[in-house]
Amino acid sequence: MDEKTRLAWAYLSRVAEPPNPLLADLVAAVGAVDAAERIRRREVSGRLKRATEARFELDCAEKDLDVLGRMGARLVTVDDDEWPTLAFSAFRGVDGNQKPQAHPPLVLWVVGPARLCDVADRAASIVGTRAATAYGEHVAADLAAGLAERSVAVVSGGAYGIDGAGHRAALASDGETVAVLAAGIDVPYPAGHSALFHRVSRHGLLVSEYPPGVRPTRRQFLTRNRLVAALSGATVVIEAGARSGAANTAAWARALGRHVCAVPGPVTSSTSVGCHALLAAGANLVTRAADVIELVGRMGELAPDVTRPTSVIDELSDIELRVYEALPGRGTRTVGEIAVAAGLPVTDVLGPLAMLDVRGLATQEEGGWKLARR
Amino acid sequence: MDEKTRLAWAYLSRVAEPPNPLLADLVAAVGAVDAAERIRRREVSGRLKRATEARFELDCAEKDLDVLGRMGARLVTVDDDEWPTLAFSAFRGVDGNQKPQAHPPLVLWVVGPARLCDVADRAASIVGTRAATAYGEHVAADLAAGLAERSVAVVSGGAYGIDGAGHRAALASDGETVAVLAAGIDVPYPAGHSALFHRVSRHGLLVSEYPPGVRPTRRQFLTRNRLVAALSGATVVIEAGARSGAANTAAWARALGRHVCAVPGPVTSSTSVGCHALLAAGANLVTRAADVIELVGRMGELAPDVTRPTSVIDELSDIELRVYEALPGRGTRTVGEIAVAAGLPVTDVLGPLAMLDVRGLATQEEGGWKLARR
Repeated sequence: MDEKTRLAWAYLSRVAEPPNPLLADLVAAVGAVDAAERIRRREVSGRLKRATEARFELDCAEKDLDVLGRMGARLVTVDDDEWPTLAFSAFRGVDGNQKPQAHPPLVLWVVGPARLCDVADRAASIVGTRAATAYGEHVAADLAAGLAERSVAVVSGGAYGIDGAGHRAALASDGETVAVLAAGIDVPYPAGHSALFHRVSRHGLLVSEYPPGVRPTRRQFLTRNRLVAALSGATVVIEAGARSGAANTAAWARALGRHVCAVPGPVTSSTSVGCHALLAAGANLVTRAADVIELVGRMGELAPDVTRPTSVIDELSDIELRVYEALPGRGTRTVGEIAVAAGLPVTDVLGPLAMLDVRGLATQEEGGWKLARR
Repeated sequence: MDEKTRLAWAYLSRVAEPPNPLLADLVAAVGAVDAAERIRRREVSGRLKRATEARFELDCAEKDLDVLGRMGARLVTVDDDEWPTLAFSAFRGVDGNQKPQAHPPLVLWVVGPARLCDVADRAASIVGTRAATAYGEHVAADLAAGLAERSVAVVSGGAYGIDGAGHRAALASDGETVAVLAAGIDVPYPAGHSALFHRVSRHGLLVSEYPPGVRPTRRQFLTRNRLVAALSGATVVIEAGARSGAANTAAWARALGRHVCAVPGPVTSSTSVGCHALLAAGANLVTRAADVIELVGRMGELAPDVTRPTSVIDELSDIELRVYEALPGRGTRTVGEIAVAAGLPVTDVLGPLAMLDVRGLATQEEGGWKLARR
């Protein structure tokens, strides 16, 4: 991409509040350079003219690219190999009346060694409340580590609480993690996560559709959530209150045809209320990384069954069980006594007794039968 | 019911291991007195003859009725008004190959002031592991109290842990509770629940299909579980390990067309594994008594929605929100500055500003706008 084109993309990234499908259409039709030129000259009409009216004279493109350069970051657009075309194609299936923001970003400001499209190919988002409990952070970390170990990228929003626990655990497991920010990639928000974002940018990806310097707003958080959902095959809500941004991300995941998952928690915990609401509405209940990998992994990557303790007694037939239960622990019983206790004819008791003897469950002693000591 | 008939029912209750549909058919055809007489005289054939062979000479009927009399208990059969005909009719719909024990009991030994059919008409069972955690016992008690307060009877198995917590909380709320035992009603099992069973028999119902003196066996617990499920409109599993009797009760509830419910818990708790497995398999997620009452209650007894905190900001339109977010907390911004920050034409900013002013969210000062202090 030449400098002129990059400047044009940077200009376009800021000129209208994202996402703006009219702007995207114009760029697709005439290219970024021409589109930028037309907007500057007010050679656009109708709604696009209005949408760019406030900022068309505001050109920070050179400064923005300077910031990019200093951060070792890059602008990723639909013209790049790295663009997650497949992941973003899901926006086409969303009802625009219900979700007016259901559009791909125009550009992404990205820093980090991972390739966006590769990451999106095998990723799960781990999201939840900032006011996480120790339980929630533990589960988020455990799940993220399990995903990272199986080469599933952990996508999240970089917030305190669940998001941070997910990013950190993925990094600790040498896995890939993607933080999708609601601010410019040079604006660490929350500030307490500056060091975390730095580590994410060194080992994974820091991503934003907002140009450098943009501060986050409530609306941007909600708009950002669609990218968290779009860049992952499944969205896992770990802990969320009755009102939560995580529920918004889950709604995006559902709208985009992604798997929506929730981790249950104590019903006495207000931070699990949102998760239980999602589960009651049909979200996948997940308790471990394997459950998520089964959803986002390759075909046949099935979660192993939960191991269930079994006992030799489980394998007894109903009649055998009745005879077994009729055996005394102390002393012995005659076959006749066993028959009465079991409510079975004597002739039906002999076969099961022999079978229990073979299995080491019953033993004969002084002409009677008793439970075998195990 | 005359004494002769009562003696016959008592004899029949013990002569074959319950449930025995052949015996039930015979009684339905010729009556209890005649059926008992034929079995004593061996005037029965085939499988019923074999099923009664071990115990046909064992007649404890008089002694059993003595026990009943001393306990103030009663024998309830299909001939009694109290018989829960409707509840037991569900057994007819169960595939007998899959569940060979899917038959109503022949008789029930009952003690307590409640009427069985009335109780079964509006009841939920609360079941779970004996090795309950403090969390599980708390939730069981909370749920049982909530059901009792809304006149829903709490049915359970009288075991330690969840069962006991459910019975106790129902009693504490002056509600009805039914303990369905796997032993005779005069055999307190577990012995540590003797006092609890006594209280249940004074205020609710103690029920068993086994005659007096019968000790519990593993098989009887499983057979008993079908009655817990049948006598309630919904079965709620509070805590259950990977292997548990509660899962067996839940399976009966499903087979009988009853609602199967489970309470989620921490995924780090082994006693919630069984609940999460049930939820993943489609059980209703319940977190409070109202959720259960919605399932077992009268039509229209809907659970109130979980109250969600809302804020005036939730009611803003997208444009209003963009303008709101562009307002400074300190200092002021001109309308032009707000337009740039919000990415909106100036003309689109004025209306929303007026609206925010009306709602007390924005305020004018020195020719500029800022967030209103609330």
